[in-house]
Amino acid sequence: MILAADIGGTNIRAAIVTSDGTITDEMRSRIDLGDRNSSENDLIERISHFFAKIIQGHDNITAVGVGFPGFFIGNSGVLVSSPNLPNLHHVHFAEKLSEHLKIPVKIQNDALCAAIGEHRFGAGSGISNLLHITLGTGVGGGLILNNTPHTGESGMAMEFGHLRVVHNDFARQCGCGGKGCLEAYASATAIKSLYSEATGERLGAREIQKLAHNDDQGALQLFENAGHYLGMSIAEAVKLLDVHTITISGGLTGAWSLFHPTVIESLNENLIPPLKGKINVLKSTLNDNAGLLGAAALTHFSD
Amino acid sequence: MILAADIGGTNIRAAIVTSDGTITDEMRSRIDLGDRNSSENDLIERISHFFAKIIQGHDNITAVGVGFPGFFIGNSGVLVSSPNLPNLHHVHFAEKLSEHLKIPVKIQNDALCAAIGEHRFGAGSGISNLLHITLGTGVGGGLILNNTPHTGESGMAMEFGHLRVVHNDFARQCGCGGKGCLEAYASATAIKSLYSEATGERLGAREIQKLAHNDDQGALQLFENAGHYLGMSIAEAVKLLDVHTITISGGLTGAWSLFHPTVIESLNENLIPPLKGKINVLKSTLNDNAGLLGAAALTHFSD
Repeated sequence: MILAADIGGTNIRAAIVTSDGTITDEMRSRIDLGDRNSSENDLIERISHFFAKIIQGHDNITAVGVGFPGFFIGNSGVLVSSPNLPNLHHVHFAEKLSEHLKIPVKIQNDALCAAIGEHRFGAGSGISNLLHITLGTGVGGGLILNNTPHTGESGMAMEFGHLRVVHNDFARQCGCGGKGCLEAYASATAIKSLYSEATGERLGAREIQKLAHNDDQGALQLFENAGHYLGMSIAEAVKLLDVHTITISGGLTGAWSLFHPTVIESLNENLIPPLKGKINVLKSTLNDNAGLLGAAALTHFSD
Repeated sequence: MILAADIGGTNIRAAIVTSDGTITDEMRSRIDLGDRNSSENDLIERISHFFAKIIQGHDNITAVGVGFPGFFIGNSGVLVSSPNLPNLHHVHFAEKLSEHLKIPVKIQNDALCAAIGEHRFGAGSGISNLLHITLGTGVGGGLILNNTPHTGESGMAMEFGHLRVVHNDFARQCGCGGKGCLEAYASATAIKSLYSEATGERLGAREIQKLAHNDDQGALQLFENAGHYLGMSIAEAVKLLDVHTITISGGLTGAWSLFHPTVIESLNENLIPPLKGKINVLKSTLNDNAGLLGAAALTHFSD
């Protein structure tokens, strides 16, 4: 049995996972990665304390796999940096957790974990080359080439949400400091901001999805627009990588039927002729579990 | 000794290359790939006839490596299609040439050959992950990941010239059928068209380069603009792949000092903060020989 965990900005989701990808038990704990002053030791201790309690309660856990919002060097488990925790640099994360827990620990970027999960257990299983996109609070991505996760030279491959989709003077500001990034149009955060700017009402992304499903034209337009920019970005990635299968997970996939048609339309509009119509864009079959299952699958990779 | 060849739209350039990348002898022959009615057999016979004569004159040639403007399945030497020769499909190119010549033949996409050459013998040697761009009549690209050429699922990876850089109503028409592609701004063909549209004068790209080097502001602007769009496109590729070294070969590199500053400026403007200033954009050290040397290096890969 593997203890898998998905660490987000505000909480840790953990689960016991069997080697065939079945989740048998699930727990959550609050954690505040938003506390920019928390030290490396604080963080490692808080996380290992939570894990240790779970391991004590389950005597058949042989390894821990973790998805974390940060950049890691290859499969080394060394965190280069994290947008959430600017004072952490070159933390030997896997090694330190493993010292505390006395069992092997693997850790990798959260969006790459989602790609690994989808590739191993979900809509991308049996596909050698896969581009996986996470559409949630932000927009992330993970790339599998020849059945191997591609991390990039500094663990920053597939910063998919920061592809630029708007180049004019009205380009929206993105959290990364840039302008016109996909994430500024196609994330839950963006949908919420755009809705509130247009209507003056502050609603959650799920409520806006509901309105759009009920034919609210303003809400619908936001998802169609998000799909349009998403399709443009997928086209750019396909022209570079010639990957034919794209999978998408994350909270916004609840609005799949609202944005998938515009994704396909703008994707094909922007591809070179021999690739038009050849690219499959599939909804995750793992619901919220792509990242968690990918974290579990990390423990099967050798170093 | 390897017989290496670079087959372009209008001529074949061939050379005898030693295993350390030294070119000892060079020949050219005209070939018209522009003849859209030429059959598969015609083409194979014309090419093998030219190669056979060279092989007869050099008794130490052990293999042939070829760069060709088309898309190939992996390293199989099977041509899927070629923009120049629309009536060719699924040609067992390497196998057929090898049958005629009675020695092993390898064949691969021309821009990927340039990447392989640059990686093996040029500015990218010693670098595991390399994005190579060819700036000539068109704009092409080749990608090396973990010291291995990345061909993509249908041999179409790194259609770098067809990344979209202009999204407004004034976007230029590209030869691919799309609009606003990098190639429509940063190729020799584009520079010639843009110059002629602005001045009414029809000059060659080399002459326009000369004018720009002599401070002709109109000509200079064209290269600066090309650099701007090139930097934007490199940024998109870096955000997806986290590759830190970019090399550029091809005729337009004669204008390197004119466009390199704007490449770097727009590259850094479009990167996410942790990657700004970390990307090296290097001029090929192989002059016109990147593709030829890459074709020679093909013969060292196993199937």
